[in-house]
Amino acid sequence: MWLRTRCDLTFAITVPTPFILMLRPRSGAQQWIAREEYRLTPSVPVCEFTDNYGNLCQRLVAPPGTFAVHTIAEVMTADCVDQAPGSPFVEIQNLPDSVLSYLLPSRYCESENFNEMAASITAGQLLGYDQVAAIENWLRSSIRYAPGSSDIPVSAIEVNSRQWGVCRDLSHLGIALCRSLSIPARLVVGFLYGLTPMDLHAWFEAYVAGRWYTFDATQAVLKGGYVAIGYGRDAADVAVYNQFGPPVIPIEQCVEVQIIDKEGY
Amino acid sequence: MWLRTRCDLTFAITVPTPFILMLRPRSGAQQWIAREEYRLTPSVPVCEFTDNYGNLCQRLVAPPGTFAVHTIAEVMTADCVDQAPGSPFVEIQNLPDSVLSYLLPSRYCESENFNEMAASITAGQLLGYDQVAAIENWLRSSIRYAPGSSDIPVSAIEVNSRQWGVCRDLSHLGIALCRSLSIPARLVVGFLYGLTPMDLHAWFEAYVAGRWYTFDATQAVLKGGYVAIGYGRDAADVAVYNQFGPPVIPIEQCVEVQIIDKEGY
Amino acid sequence: MWLRTRCDLTFAITVPTPFILMLRPRSGAQQWIAREEYRLTPSVPVCEFTDNYGNLCQRLVAPPGTFAVHTIAEVMTADCVDQAPGSPFVEIQNLPDSVLSYLLPSRYCESENFNEMAASITAGQLLGYDQVAAIENWLRSSIRYAPGSSDIPVSAIEVNSRQWGVCRDLSHLGIALCRSLSIPARLVVGFLYGLTPMDLHAWFEAYVAGRWYTFDATQAVLKGGYVAIGYGRDAADVAVYNQFGPPVIPIEQCVEVQIIDKEGY
Amino acid sequence: MWLRTRCDLTFAITVPTPFILMLRPRSGAQQWIAREEYRLTPSVPVCEFTDNYGNLCQRLVAPPGTFAVHTIAEVMTADCVDQAPGSPFVEIQNLPDSVLSYLLPSRYCESENFNEMAASITAGQLLGYDQVAAIENWLRSSIRYAPGSSDIPVSAIEVNSRQWGVCRDLSHLGIALCRSLSIPARLVVGFLYGLTPMDLHAWFEAYVAGRWYTFDATQAVLKGGYVAIGYGRDAADVAVYNQFGPPVIPIEQCVEVQIIDKEGY
Repeated sequence: MWLRTRCDLTFAITVPTPFILMLRPRSGAQQWIAREEYRLTPSVPVCEFTDNYGNLCQRLVAPPGTFAVHTIAEVMTADCVDQAPGSPFVEIQNLPDSVLSYLLPSRYCESENFNEMAASITAGQLLGYDQVAAIENWLRSSIRYAPGSSDIPVSAIEVNSRQWGVCRDLSHLGIALCRSLSIPARLVVGFLYGLTPMDLHAWFEAYVAGRWYTFDATQAVLKGGYVAIGYGRDAADVAVYNQFGPPVIPIEQCVEVQIIDKEGY
Repeated sequence: MWLRTRCDLTFAITVPTPFILMLRPRSGAQQWIAREEYRLTPSVPVCEFTDNYGNLCQRLVAPPGTFAVHTIAEVMTADCVDQAPGSPFVEIQNLPDSVLSYLLPSRYCESENFNEMAASITAGQLLGYDQVAAIENWLRSSIRYAPGSSDIPVSAIEVNSRQWGVCRDLSHLGIALCRSLSIPARLVVGFLYGLTPMDLHAWFEAYVAGRWYTFDATQAVLKGGYVAIGYGRDAADVAVYNQFGPPVIPIEQCVEVQIIDKEGY
Repeated sequence: MWLRTRCDLTFAITVPTPFILMLRPRSGAQQWIAREEYRLTPSVPVCEFTDNYGNLCQRLVAPPGTFAVHTIAEVMTADCVDQAPGSPFVEIQNLPDSVLSYLLPSRYCESENFNEMAASITAGQLLGYDQVAAIENWLRSSIRYAPGSSDIPVSAIEVNSRQWGVCRDLSHLGIALCRSLSIPARLVVGFLYGLTPMDLHAWFEAYVAGRWYTFDATQAVLKGGYVAIGYGRDAADVAVYNQFGPPVIPIEQCVEVQIIDKEGY
Repeated sequence: MWLRTRCDLTFAITVPTPFILMLRPRSGAQQWIAREEYRLTPSVPVCEFTDNYGNLCQRLVAPPGTFAVHTIAEVMTADCVDQAPGSPFVEIQNLPDSVLSYLLPSRYCESENFNEMAASITAGQLLGYDQVAAIENWLRSSIRYAPGSSDIPVSAIEVNSRQWGVCRDLSHLGIALCRSLSIPARLVVGFLYGLTPMDLHAWFEAYVAGRWYTFDATQAVLKGGYVAIGYGRDAADVAVYNQFGPPVIPIEQCVEVQIIDKEGY
């Protein structure tokens, strides 16, 4: 499926403000970026670097006044998400080195606190994919998905205690539960076609049977149409923007995902 | 100063247990490893890899029975720690890419919660080194150092609330305070000559004036004799050992740091 | 200066042919990619990865038939290239680790053979930038620039012996001469506004006074308008495409660089 | 098998001379370093870094006078080298990203010149391991192994033309032949137990069936007892020492490999 994604952020800046943006999707195993636009108004010098997780990050200093970031991407992504019931757990000693850090607790995923709960949720499941699917189902039925309800990330412990959250919160809890079972798990931030209401989205991936699989407890059924912008241990690693100095919030944020016709493309 | 460090850990293993150890100090800008021994009893296959922070990590599966790790290193390290009062803060836009992740909140350093407190502790200080020195002093006088009191890492928020902690806890709070001022800070785990009581140690580093500086609120005066084993955002990244499966704790742990004569070495 | 670059390559493929393409310019310290298009006809699955030099590379298998790659980028680049006469040589012990590999001989830059020649060309120059400028001048006056004359890379020794070459050949010789003076040097492949005849271009960079500087012996005067696609030790590392199996050459290659108006962009 | 390796190098230095040493073997999938010593006489400051190939490199400036490097390692290594006749060639599109650079021509392995020769040597072989084994056999019977005959690396083309060489030369030719068949190949420098005459050694590895396999045309039969110090594309990447400024050669070089008893170790 070919998608055109758009994310525009507008800020009212009062003092020169350093930003680190993460808004450029990368071509990877799961998606191909055929066209891309990244516009800053006003135009300012930008440096780009690749972070520890392979994400492309843009560094700049926003000048006082209205500062806007416009991004568009045309992306080929899978029509449906791979699912693999029954796929086995990978023993720790057989995990690739690069995956090991996704077993550790992180800022918003205090996995060391969820051992018993994860065992209980996944009781009777085959080790591996089915455990993660059971966690995803449990999140669906137990944690109320309340899109748009919160801007501030909260940690898995708090999500579990208050029983509701945005997409990022459900993912954090899912990740913490997976890691407590020694299943590597990571947060993905990006776009989802057909998301209601439309917004930036977050979901999680778990590593079983030698690869990463997508899970998303905010959707009743896993469909295709995901476009990833960034990967990390949790929301501390994958902020669409980090900003330093006096707090600045977007005065306008516009997110769109359209299906496009690229036959002959 | 030449030091011989020794760390022996003995575990009683009941089921085959995957471990990731971080017990091999690396030669770096601050220390030179002239001799090293790393012995496992019984001997088992080990793989070594370099993690995202440059630490050497050893992967193995410990077999049931008594399992012991013996490490010895002979290290040339600085006689005294560099200090640089007055050294300036580095503007975010001028920080090297590799340092940026040390500005973010992490598992045990919820830096986004300490803005006001950090501002108050460092009021009137020059931006940069002097702010960190003020934080270190505040930790010394406000948080009771209670070596050996705890094995479980707690986060900066909890350390601040209970007002006491082990070396790692004081460091976590120091790191969180630095980051809230946009000063990159990281945890270091290793050895300190003359530490009383002798044990593995943790301290922190802050990035000012273009390099990392050492800070340690557990010591009345900063002296030399530090040997670093691992660096990371906090204790989640730099565990001397991570172990998977049923919890295993050392039945014996022996740490020694001796001064040695290496003239003519 | 805002430029729109375009590179189209068309191949006649007879058997499924694995390709590694390097045709996606990256935003970096010197350039900002505001818009980009990367189209494959027919559309095939692509994986992208970052190589050891930080270049974005695209992997795919081209199917039998006509296979075309169309790339467009809109890039903000410097109006004029930084020059720094008198800038000092960096002592080996003070070079960043990441730069050291650019001191070594490589496939097309047999630097260990040019010690005397480099000493003679740069006699009397201040160590550093001025040595490289003398090398660039020597190349300009001694090696005939013959654009379009050759498709096969030849090494610095051969370029020096035959006394003519394409942009890549002049750069290889320049790089070999720099390295023989212990000045790190690397090849850059990309676009140059106003190049006659228009084509993909290659130039070199040398590391003096703590940063990389641009040199280009094919141009009488260094102007701005460079857009880098890839960096590496020499042409072995930075091929716009590597192809495996029976040799395939482009049946059509179109390169364009236009100046565009991006006021208000 | 447990081995104790020793390599001592002594230099007569006249002016302060920057060195990059590569003399610290790393624990990896194939070997475990249980004890290690790295002594410099006189003692000078050293920085260590990890190069692009994962090798540990030591940077220092040797002062005028006699300068000696003493290294000892106690290493567990395989009793016999894995061999896998019949193991399949990996299609380019299925190779891991990290292996791709070992397909490219490099300083001493001008692989693009050996297509026909490699096809002829491996005619009739199964694609993969058997091709490399045929190359190794061809080297054994066609290129005279003349240990100690040369200090200066020569390239595969020259080795092939003169029909004799040291271990490094045979490896370079083997690597060039493998790469011309699209089989990734790399040079390894290290120690070999029982090598006659004893010296530092070089061999090569080829990537087939999803992993690296060891090949060594200098030995009639592949046995165990290899200890790797460094990996790279060819000898340009894996020099035991690189030295800058006026040329310096060892006035003494001592290499030893002994079998040791580590039962109960």
